[in-house]
Amino acid sequence: MALYVQKFGGTSVGDPDRIREVADHVARCRKRGDEVVLVVSAMGKETDELIRLAEQVSRATPGREMDMLITGGERKACALVSMALHDKGIESASFTGSQAGFLTDTTHRNAKILELNPYRIREALAAGRVPVVGGSQGVSADNDVTFFGRGGSDTTAVALAHALGADACELYTDVPGVFTTDPRVVADARKMDRISFDELLEMTATGCPKPAMRSVELARSRGVTLHVRSAFSWVPGTWVTEEASMERAIISAVTHDTSEAKMTVSGVSDRPGVAAQLFRTLADAEVNVDMIVQNVSEEGRTDISFTLPHEQISRADDAVAAIVDELGSDAVIADDDIARVSLIGAGMKSNPGVAATMFETLSDNGINIEMISTSAIRISCVVRQAQAEAAVAALHAAFQLEKAPEDRTDI
Amino acid sequence: MALYVQKFGGTSVGDPDRIREVADHVARCRKRGDEVVLVVSAMGKETDELIRLAEQVSRATPGREMDMLITGGERKACALVSMALHDKGIESASFTGSQAGFLTDTTHRNAKILELNPYRIREALAAGRVPVVGGSQGVSADNDVTFFGRGGSDTTAVALAHALGADACELYTDVPGVFTTDPRVVADARKMDRISFDELLEMTATGCPKPAMRSVELARSRGVTLHVRSAFSWVPGTWVTEEASMERAIISAVTHDTSEAKMTVSGVSDRPGVAAQLFRTLADAEVNVDMIVQNVSEEGRTDISFTLPHEQISRADDAVAAIVDELGSDAVIADDDIARVSLIGAGMKSNPGVAATMFETLSDNGINIEMISTSAIRISCVVRQAQAEAAVAALHAAFQLEKAPEDRTDI
Repeated sequence: MALYVQKFGGTSVGDPDRIREVADHVARCRKRGDEVVLVVSAMGKETDELIRLAEQVSRATPGREMDMLITGGERKACALVSMALHDKGIESASFTGSQAGFLTDTTHRNAKILELNPYRIREALAAGRVPVVGGSQGVSADNDVTFFGRGGSDTTAVALAHALGADACELYTDVPGVFTTDPRVVADARKMDRISFDELLEMTATGCPKPAMRSVELARSRGVTLHVRSAFSWVPGTWVTEEASMERAIISAVTHDTSEAKMTVSGVSDRPGVAAQLFRTLADAEVNVDMIVQNVSEEGRTDISFTLPHEQISRADDAVAAIVDELGSDAVIADDDIARVSLIGAGMKSNPGVAATMFETLSDNGINIEMISTSAIRISCVVRQAQAEAAVAALHAAFQLEKAPEDRTDI
Repeated sequence: MALYVQKFGGTSVGDPDRIREVADHVARCRKRGDEVVLVVSAMGKETDELIRLAEQVSRATPGREMDMLITGGERKACALVSMALHDKGIESASFTGSQAGFLTDTTHRNAKILELNPYRIREALAAGRVPVVGGSQGVSADNDVTFFGRGGSDTTAVALAHALGADACELYTDVPGVFTTDPRVVADARKMDRISFDELLEMTATGCPKPAMRSVELARSRGVTLHVRSAFSWVPGTWVTEEASMERAIISAVTHDTSEAKMTVSGVSDRPGVAAQLFRTLADAEVNVDMIVQNVSEEGRTDISFTLPHEQISRADDAVAAIVDELGSDAVIADDDIARVSLIGAGMKSNPGVAATMFETLSDNGINIEMISTSAIRISCVVRQAQAEAAVAALHAAFQLEKAPEDRTDI
C-alpha cells in the first residue's frame, strides 16, 4: 500500500464532468489499495476571473484582500471534489490551507511556508477518508489568509508529500508529461519517461511551462519524487527523481522562451565597478536580470547586454536613465523581439562537443546568435523571435530527440 | 459619533458598480463622523449558482462540504467590498465569519451561534479601519466552516451590532423599507417609517420577504434597533424598535403567503390523543405544520386540517398514510392551491372589531374563508390562491393603509 499526494491543476477540475472523472480516478487508486491525498487548484480560469473582478471594483488591489479573494477559487474546488468523492461512496473531507496546517509568513500574493503541521490530514487518513486540500494557500502568523502565488498548488502538494512521507507527489495536468520540446512546435517531440530535477529546473527556467519552479526546487531539496502526468489520459507520465537520468541521454530537451526582452547599454567606460553599479541599480529597481553579456572592450568602451522580463522594460529604462551619465554610456536600447532557445541535458557536462554542434546547427539554418549563456547542464542562445521555432525544430532533429536515448546515433 | 453595523444583501453587492456605490455610501457615513462595520451577503445569485454546481458534481451534498462551498460566496464579496473601500482611500480589512469571532455548533447548513468574540473587529475599528465581514458563517467547535443558512447575513449583522454595542443595525436591501403590503399587488402600498418587532415578526412569518425572521427575533431579544432600508436610493427606510409603534396604528400591514399547502385528514375518531398522535407523527417526519384547524365533531368523527410547506407534502403524505388506520380516518387530501392572507397590527389587541371587519370585507368581495388562525397582533385567513391578491387589495383599502395612521378615519 502506497501513499500518493495527487495535485490536480485548473483544467483537470475545470467543470463538473472533469471533477467526476477525478473522483473516478481516486476510486481506482483506492481499489488498488493505495492511500490518496488530493490537492486542487481553482477551476479552469477562475483565478483570472477573480482578478478581473477585483480590477473592476478597485484600482487598489491590496494584497491581504486579494489573497482572501483568490484563495476562494481553490476552496470552492476542494469542496466540490470532496462532494464528488462522497458521491462515489468514498469518505472524504475538504480542507483549506489553514485547516491543512500551512502556516506562512505575511507576504501576501507570494507567501512562503514557515511551518506545516498536517495533523488534520493525518487524522482524516487514519479514519479512512480522502483529504482534499485547497492548493496555494495558508494562514499567516497574523491569522490572515495567504496565497502562495500562481502555480502554488504544486508547492502545496510537494510540501504535503514531504510532511506525510508520501511515496510520490503526482502532478496531474493537461499534458501527458515532460517532452523533449514543445509538441506544438515540433510534431515528433517525445515524452520522456524520466528526467532529473536539475534538468527539469533548467527546462522550467527556460520556457517549459510546468510544473512551477518553486515546487520542483522544494521537491529536490526535500527528496520528494515527482510524477508529472495527464489528468485526461490517466496513463503514466514523466518521473522526476534525484538520481541521474536512467536514460543516460547526453541531451534531454530543447526549450524556447519568448517572455524576455534584451536591453543593451552601449559605449560604457571599461573600468572596474561600472558593471557592478549598473546591476546594483537594476536590482534596487527590482528588475529581474537573467542573461548578461559584456562585449570585448574597444578603445576603453564596451557594450553590456542583458535579458529581462518584457513588463520590466520601462522600470529598467528609468533606472538606467538616472545613471547613464555616470556610466559614460552613449545609448540604451531595448529590444522586445528576441527569444531564448536552450539545450538541456545532464550528459553535456562531459561532452564538450555539444556547444559546437548547437552553434553549427543554428548557423546551417541561417539563424544568428545574439547572446550565449551556459550552465553545467544547459546552453542558451538568444536569437530573433521569428526564428525561435525554426531553431527549436533544427536542434531537436540534430540531437535526435525524437528517438529514445538508446536508439540515437553518435553525433 | 455613532456606530452602525450595515448589512448589504446580494443585490446590493451584485456587480462591480453596486460594490463601488456601497463604498461611496460608506465614505459619506464616515465623513459625517460615524463608525461603520459592514456585513455582506454573496453577490447576486452566487449562492444559487454554487448550489447548482454542487448538484452537477454530486448527488450527495454533504453538509460540511456544502458549507465550505457556499460560504465562499460571502467571502468573495467581503474581499471585493474591502478593496473598493481601499480605492476610495478608506482603510479597510475583510474578515471571514471565523476571523470575526463567530463560534457555532456543528449543525452544517443551519449552524447556530454559540459564542461571538469580535476582538479583531474591535481592533480594526480602533485602528480606524472599516471591517467588512462575510455574512452567514462561522467556525464550529470541530474547526470546520459552518453556514447559518439562507438569510443568515442578517443574523451576522444583528449579532455583531449587539456584541459591539452599535447604535443600530442597518439592513440594506433592494426595497426601500417595510410596506403596508406588497407594492407589486397594491399600487398605493405605503412605506412605514416605524414598526414594532412583534409586528415585523408576524409579517415575516406570513409572507413579507425580508428581513430574515431569525435575525428579527435575535434583534428583539437583544434589544438591537433595526433599520430596514434601500441600498439603491440610500434614503431612510423603516425603523424597527422594541417600543410600541409611534404611529399607534390599529392595523399596520396586510401580507400574503403562497408558500404553503393545506392538508386535511378527514373523518378521524374524535377521541383524546388522536390529534396528539397525528402531529407527533408529522413532527417526527420533520414536517413544519403551521396553522391547525379542527372542525366541530359530527357523530364522533371530525376533520383535522393543517398548513405545511409545499415541498413537504409527499413527506407528510407518507407519514400520515402509516397511521391512517389507527386514526380511523377515511381520507387524506392535500390542497396546493391556497394562500394565506394576514392582517397585522399591535393595535388590534384592544380592538375586537378588527376580525369582524376583515371577514366582512372578504365576504363582500366574494372571497371564501377556508381556515382562520389568530394571534394577539395577527389574523390569518386561508383563501383560494387565485383570490389572494384581490383579498390583499380589498383589506388594504378597507383599513385605509395607504394613509398615514393619523389621517385614517375610524372604521
